[in-house]
Formats: sequence, C-alpha cells, structure tokens
Amino acid sequence: MHTATYASPHARLRALPFAAARLTGGFWAERQAVNRAAGLRHGYAQLEQAGNFYNLRLAAGLTTGDYKGYLYLDSDLYKWLEAVSYALAAGPDPELQALADRTIGLLAAAQQGDGYLNAYWQVAKPGQRWTDLDHGHEMYCAGHLFQAAVAHHRATGRPDLLTLACKFADHIDATFGPGKRQGACGHPEVELALVELYRETGERRYLALAAYLLDWRGHRHFRAFGSFGPEYYQDHAPVRDFSEVVGHVVRQFYLDVGVVDLYLETGEPALLAAAQRRWHDATAHKMHVTGGFGARYEGEAFGLPYELPSDRTYCETCAAIGGMMLNWRLLLATGEARYAELFERGLYNGFLAGPALDGRSYFYVNPLQSRGGYARSAWYATACCPPNVMRTLASVEHFLATTSAAGVQVHQYAAAEITLGPRALRLDTHYPWDGDITLTVTATDAAEWELQLRIPTWAAGATATLNGAPLAAALTPGAYAAVTRAWQVGDVIQLRLPLTPRFTQPHPRIDALRGTLALERGPLVYCLEQGDQPAGVDLLDVQVDLAAQPQTTARADLPGVVALAAPGYRLNVAALAETLYYPADAAPQPRAPLTLTAVPYYAWANRGAGAMRVWLPAA
Amino acid sequence: MHTATYASPHARLRALPFAAARLTGGFWAERQAVNRAAGLRHGYAQLEQAGNFYNLRLAAGLTTGDYKGYLYLDSDLYKWLEAVSYALAAGPDPELQALADRTIGLLAAAQQGDGYLNAYWQVAKPGQRWTDLDHGHEMYCAGHLFQAAVAHHRATGRPDLLTLACKFADHIDATFGPGKRQGACGHPEVELALVELYRETGERRYLALAAYLLDWRGHRHFRAFGSFGPEYYQDHAPVRDFSEVVGHVVRQFYLDVGVVDLYLETGEPALLAAAQRRWHDATAHKMHVTGGFGARYEGEAFGLPYELPSDRTYCETCAAIGGMMLNWRLLLATGEARYAELFERGLYNGFLAGPALDGRSYFYVNPLQSRGGYARSAWYATACCPPNVMRTLASVEHFLATTSAAGVQVHQYAAAEITLGPRALRLDTHYPWDGDITLTVTATDAAEWELQLRIPTWAAGATATLNGAPLAAALTPGAYAAVTRAWQVGDVIQLRLPLTPRFTQPHPRIDALRGTLALERGPLVYCLEQGDQPAGVDLLDVQVDLAAQPQTTARADLPGVVALAAPGYRLNVAALAETLYYPADAAPQPRAPLTLTAVPYYAWANRGAGAMRVWLPAA
Repeated sequence: MHTATYASPHARLRALPFAAARLTGGFWAERQAVNRAAGLRHGYAQLEQAGNFYNLRLAAGLTTGDYKGYLYLDSDLYKWLEAVSYALAAGPDPELQALADRTIGLLAAAQQGDGYLNAYWQVAKPGQRWTDLDHGHEMYCAGHLFQAAVAHHRATGRPDLLTLACKFADHIDATFGPGKRQGACGHPEVELALVELYRETGERRYLALAAYLLDWRGHRHFRAFGSFGPEYYQDHAPVRDFSEVVGHVVRQFYLDVGVVDLYLETGEPALLAAAQRRWHDATAHKMHVTGGFGARYEGEAFGLPYELPSDRTYCETCAAIGGMMLNWRLLLATGEARYAELFERGLYNGFLAGPALDGRSYFYVNPLQSRGGYARSAWYATACCPPNVMRTLASVEHFLATTSAAGVQVHQYAAAEITLGPRALRLDTHYPWDGDITLTVTATDAAEWELQLRIPTWAAGATATLNGAPLAAALTPGAYAAVTRAWQVGDVIQLRLPLTPRFTQPHPRIDALRGTLALERGPLVYCLEQGDQPAGVDLLDVQVDLAAQPQTTARADLPGVVALAAPGYRLNVAALAETLYYPADAAPQPRAPLTLTAVPYYAWANRGAGAMRVWLPAA
Repeated sequence: MHTATYASPHARLRALPFAAARLTGGFWAERQAVNRAAGLRHGYAQLEQAGNFYNLRLAAGLTTGDYKGYLYLDSDLYKWLEAVSYALAAGPDPELQALADRTIGLLAAAQQGDGYLNAYWQVAKPGQRWTDLDHGHEMYCAGHLFQAAVAHHRATGRPDLLTLACKFADHIDATFGPGKRQGACGHPEVELALVELYRETGERRYLALAAYLLDWRGHRHFRAFGSFGPEYYQDHAPVRDFSEVVGHVVRQFYLDVGVVDLYLETGEPALLAAAQRRWHDATAHKMHVTGGFGARYEGEAFGLPYELPSDRTYCETCAAIGGMMLNWRLLLATGEARYAELFERGLYNGFLAGPALDGRSYFYVNPLQSRGGYARSAWYATACCPPNVMRTLASVEHFLATTSAAGVQVHQYAAAEITLGPRALRLDTHYPWDGDITLTVTATDAAEWELQLRIPTWAAGATATLNGAPLAAALTPGAYAAVTRAWQVGDVIQLRLPLTPRFTQPHPRIDALRGTLALERGPLVYCLEQGDQPAGVDLLDVQVDLAAQPQTTARADLPGVVALAAPGYRLNVAALAETLYYPADAAPQPRAPLTLTAVPYYAWANRGAGAMRVWLPAA
C-alpha cells in the first residue's frame, strides 16, 4: 500500500519515505500487533488450506493434481506477501521471514521462462494465456505481484522478488501495447501497480504501459457479464470522459487510483479532473457514513445516488480500502484536507470493521444494520478482503503524514515517531479514545519549516498550544493549522480535539435513513449491538433522544474501548395490532425510556452475532 | 386459475362453477378486454419470437435445429394457453380458437408415446429425462400443462388437451411415488395442478401423487443452488413443520397453494395450520403495502421480517399472483374475510402493476420506488410473468364470489352477472372509482338463503339499504354483512363504501419506510409519478402533509382514472451543503408548499419511465 511519490513531479505532497514512520503504541500499534501475531499467520494457514500455495506448487511442477478454487487465487497470496513485507520492515520476525522466503522461492520455481506467472492459466489452461482478458484476472494478479515485489524490495532491499516481477511486467509490456496485442484486464489493478513499479525501478515502459491500459478501457471492449453491461467494468466511456462512479465498486476505485497515480507522474489535468468528479459523485451521493461504498449485492455495485440501504448494502471491505487508496492519492495530488478526512472515516469504520479484533476472521460484506446471525468468516472462496486488510494494517503508519518543500503535514493522529532526515517528530496520543495530541520536535535543522496539523470537520472548538502558549494559527475545522518557524528540539505542540459524542443526520434524499440519527465520537461511528442493551429490548424497537447528550462509558467485555450511553426509548410494539400497515391516525405507539449503549462500529460482531444498527430511529 | 372446489369436502366456501360469473362492464371488463384484444395476441407473437413454439416443433420433429432459450419455456406457452381457454369461455374468438387448436395439435405431435412431454429435455437432452429434478423444471412445466388442460376442458368441453395431459400425468404417476422412483421437482407447481386435475377427472391417483410430492419435499434432498441452501426450495423442513416463509417467493407460494389444495380434499388439519402459520408470517412481516412479496433480488427471495425496501425490492409479478392464489384457497378453506381482503389488495396493486395499460409490456420486478429509467418489457428471457398475468386477467370474474350451503358470498365488487342454478345476481358498480355498489336479485327460488357482502377493513362508515330501507345487518369493517331471507326477484341492496382518500403508516419496525406515509383510496394504493408534479420538482425532495385531506382529481392522459391531489412541500435541497451527512443540529431544510398529484400504483410507468414513489416522506 506504500506509495513512493518522493519524486512524482505532480504530487503536491509526498508520501513519507519507507520506514520514516514508526508506530510507538496506542490504537494502531495494537491493531498492527494483532495483525502480525495472529492475522498474517492465520492468513498463511488459510492460503495453504484454500490451495493458493498448492496451485503454485502445481505450476512449479512440484506436485501433481488439479487446480483448486477460483482463477484469481494468486492475488490473495500476493497481498499477503505484501503485508508480510511491511511487517518485516517494522520489526524482525524469523518465522514470517522464512514464510516469505519460501513463497518467493515457490514463485521463482513457478514462473515461466518468458516471465509469465499465473497458477490458474499455467495449470488449468495451458497454452491459453490471455484468451479471456474480460474475466481471466491475469493482469489483476500480476498487479498484486508487482505491489508485493515493490513492498518487499523497499522492506528488505533484496532484489529477488522485484526482479521476478519485472520479468513478468516486461513480458506483459512485450505482449500488449501500441503496435502489439490490444487489450486490458477486466479488473483494474495492474495500472496502479505498474506506476508504482515505475517509481521503484525508474523503468518508463511500465508507466507507458499503465497509460496504455487506462486508455484502452472505456470503449466497450468487454463482453456483457450476465445482466451487467459495460458499466460493470467501467468500460462504457474513456477514463477522462465520465463523471459518475458506476458498476463494480472495487474495479471503479482501483481504476481511479491508477488514474491519479498516472496523473502524479504526468500531470495531465484531465486525469485528475475526471478522478475528482467521480470522487465527488462517490462521496456526495454513494457513500455510507462509515466511509464504506457499494449499495448492491447485484454486481457488487454502486447504487443510484442516495440509494444507501443499511441492511442489504454490500460495503465490501475491499471497497472501503479502495476508497482509502483513492483518497490518499487525491491528498497527494492536491494537499486538500477533505481527502485526509474521508481517509480517516474509512480507516476507523468501513475498513476496520472488516477484521475481527483477534485477527482470525474477516467480513467481506459490511452492513450497517444486521437483524442478527451475521458473522465474520475465517476465509472466503473469493478471499480478496482478508489479505487486503492485512496489507493495509501492516502499512498504516505510512498514511500518518506527508512532506513537501515547505515542511511536514500531519493527517492522522497516532502515537508514532516520524524521522525525515535531520528533522524528527514524536506524536503522543491515546486518539481516538481521547483528543489530546502532543507533538514534540525531537530533531531539526536550523532552517524554518512549516508544520501542518489537520483539524477534522467535527472538531469545532479545538485548541492548541506551542510550548504552553496559544498556538498562533487558525484551527479551522476541515483545514490544516499551519505554523512556520525555526523549530527547536523540544518544542511541543499540544492539540486538543473535542471528542464530545455527537448525533449526525443523513441527507434528506437518503430514503433508507429517513428519521434516523447516527452517533459519532471523534473519527468513530458508533452502533448499537443487541447484547449491550437491557434484556428483551429488540433493536428494531429503539429510539434515541436527540435532546439528551450521550455520555462516555465502558464495557468490561471490550477492554480499552470507549462506549457511549445514550438516553432513548423502547417502543412497545406488542401493543400494536399484528399488521404491517395502519391508518395514519392510529394512536401513537406507547414507549418506555431506557438507556442505550453504543460501541464503535469497527468493534461489532466480536461478542456474538446479535443484531446491530448504526442508524438509530429518532424519538 | 379457476379452482373447481364444488365437491371439495373441506371447503367452507365453494368456487363458482365455471362460467357462472360474467363481467358486464367497468374496471375489470376493460382490463380483460385489453388482455383479449392485445395481451393474448401479443403473447402469441412473443412466444413465437422467443422460440417456445419452435422448440415444440423441434420436439415434434416438424423442424430441425437447436433448442432455444431456458429449459422451462414450455411453461410460458401453457400459461398462455390457459389464458386463451378462459377467453374462449367468456366469448367466441375464432382467431384465438385457431391459435389454441394449432397449439394443441403441436403438443399432441410433440408428446412422446409414453406420455412424456417437454421440449427442452426431448430436444436438448434426449434420453436424460428426470436427471435433474432440482432444476430441470419438468414437473413444473407439466403442472402448467395440467392447469391449461383443465381450463381448456372446462371452457370448451373438448377432451383432447385434457386427455393429453392425463397421459403425461399417468406417466409421472407411473414413474414417481411409493415403491417407484423417489423425487419431486425443485419448483413446486405440479402439486396444485394435480389436485385440480383430480377435481376435473376424479382420478384419485393424481391426488395421491400430489400428496406424495408434497411429503417428499422438506428433507434436504435438493443440492445447494449457488450460495442458497435448502430454504431456497422450501426443502429445509417438511411442509407441516415450518412456520416461516423462506427462500424463493414463487416457490413458497406455489407450494403452499398445493398444501391448501390438498387440505381442501383431505381435511388434514396440520396442512391447513402450517399454511396459515406461513401466511401469517408472509402477511404480518414480509408483505409490501401493494400486496407484493419478495424483498431481495438475490434468490428472488423473501427478506427477513420487516425487511421491505421500496427501491430494491423484488416483488415479482408472479409472487403477487402466488399470494393471490394462496389467499383464494385459504378463503375457500376458512371463509374468513381477511383472505379476500388481501386478495383484493394484491389484485389491484401488486398484480395489476405488472401489465401495461395497453397489454403489450410487463413488469417482472415491481418496485415501490423508482429513481427513474425503469420500464416494462415486451417479454423476458424468463417470461413467467406475462402469461401468468394473462391467465389471471382472463379468469378474474371467477374470484368475485363463492357459494355455500347457506347461500352466496360476494368478496370482490365488479359489474357482473352471477348465475347459480335458479338464483342469479347482478352487480352494478363503478368500483373502484366510486364506492356505490348495487346488487340486484335477478332470479331466485322460494327458499331462504343467505347473501354475504364483504366490508373492507378501510370501509368504516359503510352504509347499505335493502329496497330503500336500512339493511338489517352489521356493516363491520373486515367482516361480511349477512342477510338471510326469502329473496324476491327485483330485491335491491345498495351498498356504499366510503372512498375518502386516506394516509397509511408503516409498522415502526420497517426501517425502509420510517417517516413516510402511503396514500390509498378504496382498494387502490397510490403513487407519485415525476411527470405529474410541478416542473422541476424531484420526487426525492417531496413531503406530504398528513393534516391536509387529499382530494380527488383527474389527469387527461389517464382517462377514467381517479387521481388525487395532496397538499405537501418541496424541500430545497440546493440550500444544503453537498455532503451526505450533517450535524444533527444543522438548520432545518427550507421548504416550499406545493400540491402533489398521485395516481393509482397499478397505472404507473404508462406515460414514460420517470421517477415514482409509493411511500411519501411525511412533513
């Protein structure tokens, strides 16, 4: 997930150099520790059990049998390997190191002489490579290999996996492009990976190939997929020419990530403008309050504007990750706080609900309401989400801050150390549980430089001091507070973001949410879980009272988590006739007061598979 | 659709003898005339174009080539032939007669020597009959043949199609059952058809076979269908043992129709009780206000209780028909008004929205909200719905009334003549456009007999006179007004049902409908269509005012239809920030008053494919 935009000529902000940031404790360090200790090992065992390694052993001629599972299984393994690479950079781990080395050896054994590498097509369809670009996922898998190889090279400095990846990229480049074979992959991914491979190697052919593939798309090349037309693949119009996100959500986001990555290198205004128009459509019309995307099971697709059901929404974990990837690149391209803000919303909510707290099970679909019985699975036949979670968790420190010629921009708050040549910062905070952030300059050169701190939109009333005196900077919600000075080692900024629990209302056009409120605190969206409410209260019957201020509380079975207690009511539906539709002038439903307990959405379904709801009927 | 329960020993009420009722004008006569003049001819042309006839010609050896379309195409043709049979009974039509005769000749030519008849399995899979009971639809198609044959026999008195059908039924009976091969069809239908074939022929083997097939189901015989388990087929539990409607809606309803049909002949209490428990679940937890069913596209399935979205609901036209078929049988079994009431709700709304007003296009999916762009199609690759509509429209007079030893029960109001031996009634009414119903006794014997008139639940304040004097009977909404006397020719009952437009509220557990109201008048559910509102008003932005009484009005482009004018508001969403989620204490949205125009839901999408909504946000 790391993006090396240090030299990208059109990046307003540059990603941190690899390993410049280190988590030192707190919320994300804990999540990352679980990912390392449990998630990555669980992932290895699941990949072994599902046949991902077995398939590559078949391709390498190390065993015999039939290919197992869907044709895109290699990609799961690559995302896991990318995650392992980040983990190895963050700290030594001989066991993970051995697993990675063994995997790379297997890939080398499986790779064909001309660089081609894909277990399915080598084993199940020998001689038929590139015969089903629409659904074959060959370039999609290749893209994940390239991302893993770049991560591994940055993490270890070793050339072996990167060399293997370049050999495959060279093969694709020799096969497809102007004057060669025409085509692109039905599932975007290789485009963004080729740009990153270019950044890592300097090989401009990879950048040109990414541009070619992005341009090839959008001319109705792909055949209809069931009842889905070209929008499913974003093949209905060229990438510069359409303004609405359509079709399969992950495809749309991965495509636009590639579009912005190409912009960062080429500076072509039409690329950025088109991606921004689509981002606007996605976030102003088709986004859940969790930062999740994808209203429909059918086609794993965006719905129409304002079509945002809570119960039957799709909200694939990978879609939340895709949205974060896009927000990250748009932040690099523009420096605008709104992208960092939505990155944070997705990170703490739509994304983080994906993995279980113990790292051993994962959601594919992330509803905002469950009527009960819905739980994470250890793995999936289509297991894109679990290793996508793993690589995101393993690289989360990368997204905390950026640099520019002017200085350093802090976008997300976590306990961390950030070292940038002669300058270094330390962030101390228990965010998101409290809003106090202490930023200490731990090293600096003599030059004046700028420090920017993002003030979230919800943080009206934020305060900040510098060495105890009020900070001479505007603390405008939804913007950056900026201070330029000749920093001294030991300078301390104390930022206080108010974390008062707050109610949020939906846009009146969202029919599915009419008459409801969401409960939020800081970056966290909260939800009600059945098991936290008084006995016998059905989540279908509760109301919250907007006039009553929710208070923080705790749940013994969710240690370390700030829960919320919200005054509300329980409707006595037993008093209603057993019919679905009533005269509008029927007597109002009787109700009784009670206190509702809310927990962060990301933590739901870790204590049983009871009912859950994010949007709460307003009294 | 006609059910001959004249002799069914456990029917509390008996269906009218075939052709005892005749529509004389008004609402349903008009719909039926369109069905005859346009629908049935359109159906023939579409069946020819889609390959249904061609496939049978292949089976008959009259032409050569490959089978076209899905494997269940025969069933569409059978439903059309059933509809044509009813139309021929209602009045001569040489063209339809010739089409029916030609079709029967083709079926006779295609039928195999042992009685087996199925174009797909004969042409595409010779020698493989009954090898895929789960999905092969052979008995499903056979059931529709049996229903067509029974209808044709009743309509024409001719034995040819019935004899052909019995030959196939005998083949199935010789193949499946105790001591023979074990199995049933993945899609229920043949069970209800076999009971009706028994009623028509007196052959008890058909009844026993129906019972066997109903009992075979429910033991997890069928294999998983994609991600769907045995609930998809109602194969998770025996028919007597479960209480919740599950899985594929049409399968569930056709199954329960067969269950109640078997009860009507055998009187086994557990059959009726199980069907009634499931009916309660369907109507108290899973029914749209239109009398439509099926919340989910995935699996064409029921949702969980109270999961009733307006926009992405499935509400297949066939599901509304299935619900009506079940309500009809439960009415016959129990004599309870609630079944007739829900039959009416489905008939005027969920069902009647299926066909276009011109009879030349049909909905498969019937949403209660469209954001625009959704229109009926002339036909479908899976064309179950259009001919199902045709046979229902062609037999609608059959559902107006029933008889019992005590007398006559009038369940639905339409201009019609009903003749029952020495007794006859005439109904004159413009229902549902006005609520005046005049019932005249046009023939009678000397005995005392009872006349029952259904008073709908919404008809509080109904009045009635007998020969000008107040009727000596309770007019209780949701029950029958009953008068027993020695009727005289010329006796006139004048019933007045108040048709004041009324607002209806949803059960508070229906999350998708919170804060909205439906507008109804008599049996009709109304909706807003974009084109009827003031220019520039988006249906996403309207509110209705519960305190203001809607008034009747008219639309020149919907002649004969009573429209409604409802005072309301338009939200000025342009004044809102372009974001989906706001602080709950943000200023209220500004709004401006306007008058909204509502038309009957059944009439929607006949004047363009603009936005539509049934549930209206309450101001």
